[in-house]
Amino acid sequence: MSADKKEIESGTNFTPKFDDNGLITAIAQDVNTTEVLMVAYMNKEALDTTIRTGIATYYSRSRKKLWKKGEQSGHIQKVRQILVDCDQDCLILKVSVDAGQCHVGYQSCFYRAVKIENSEKLEFIAEKTYDPESAYGD
Amino acid sequence: MSADKKEIESGTNFTPKFDDNGLITAIAQDVNTTEVLMVAYMNKEALDTTIRTGIATYYSRSRKKLWKKGEQSGHIQKVRQILVDCDQDCLILKVSVDAGQCHVGYQSCFYRAVKIENSEKLEFIAEKTYDPESAYGD
Repeated sequence: MSADKKEIESGTNFTPKFDDNGLITAIAQDVNTTEVLMVAYMNKEALDTTIRTGIATYYSRSRKKLWKKGEQSGHIQKVRQILVDCDQDCLILKVSVDAGQCHVGYQSCFYRAVKIENSEKLEFIAEKTYDPESAYGD
Repeated sequence: MSADKKEIESGTNFTPKFDDNGLITAIAQDVNTTEVLMVAYMNKEALDTTIRTGIATYYSRSRKKLWKKGEQSGHIQKVRQILVDCDQDCLILKVSVDAGQCHVGYQSCFYRAVKIENSEKLEFIAEKTYDPESAYGD
């Protein structure tokens, strides 16, 4: 194993690896319930902002700009801990949240499961926790 | 909102969205402890294989081939449930596992946290759960 690889995997320097688009994958996980809430992406500025402010800030690939989660809905994420994986190309943000985190109205974006007996179909496994129209408009 | 977008976000058809490289992000989460174990990628064949066999199979971006997790170490992942997010471009696999899932020797790949007071440094938050050299060789 190269010294670089060993340092990345077993060292104590935080050297996040951004992909060819300058992004790193970030998983938001509820620090209390441990439910995975959403997956989004950060560029270096978003990550620096998140660490500095303690409020989760991502990079919106569709809008091509920084995106403070909750800036429109009010459902911000207070960051309690940031974990990084072995090869430092993925982050987990352990966050404190209030109401639903998904723009469709659910607490988590992962509100549907693949039906094992019919893998082309999904089944809903969650109830909506807020009204997205009142938070985002139509 | 377009009818297509509404169907993707609120419908019951499973239409996973693969990226420009033909891949979808997959998070493996321990179904018992709820710990996030690792993040990997699947192409359509890997996803179909996972659904058909019930054993997590990913696509290795470095080796450019299907990768049955645990094929070398023996630490396979039995898939209990597959969740998909709102825009169907990310999956969670709820899995049953035995020993450590990370090739560095930890139960999870996320064994280090960013030090809040010094964001360029990491601290280890986990103990190794197996000896990676005996599982993978040097």
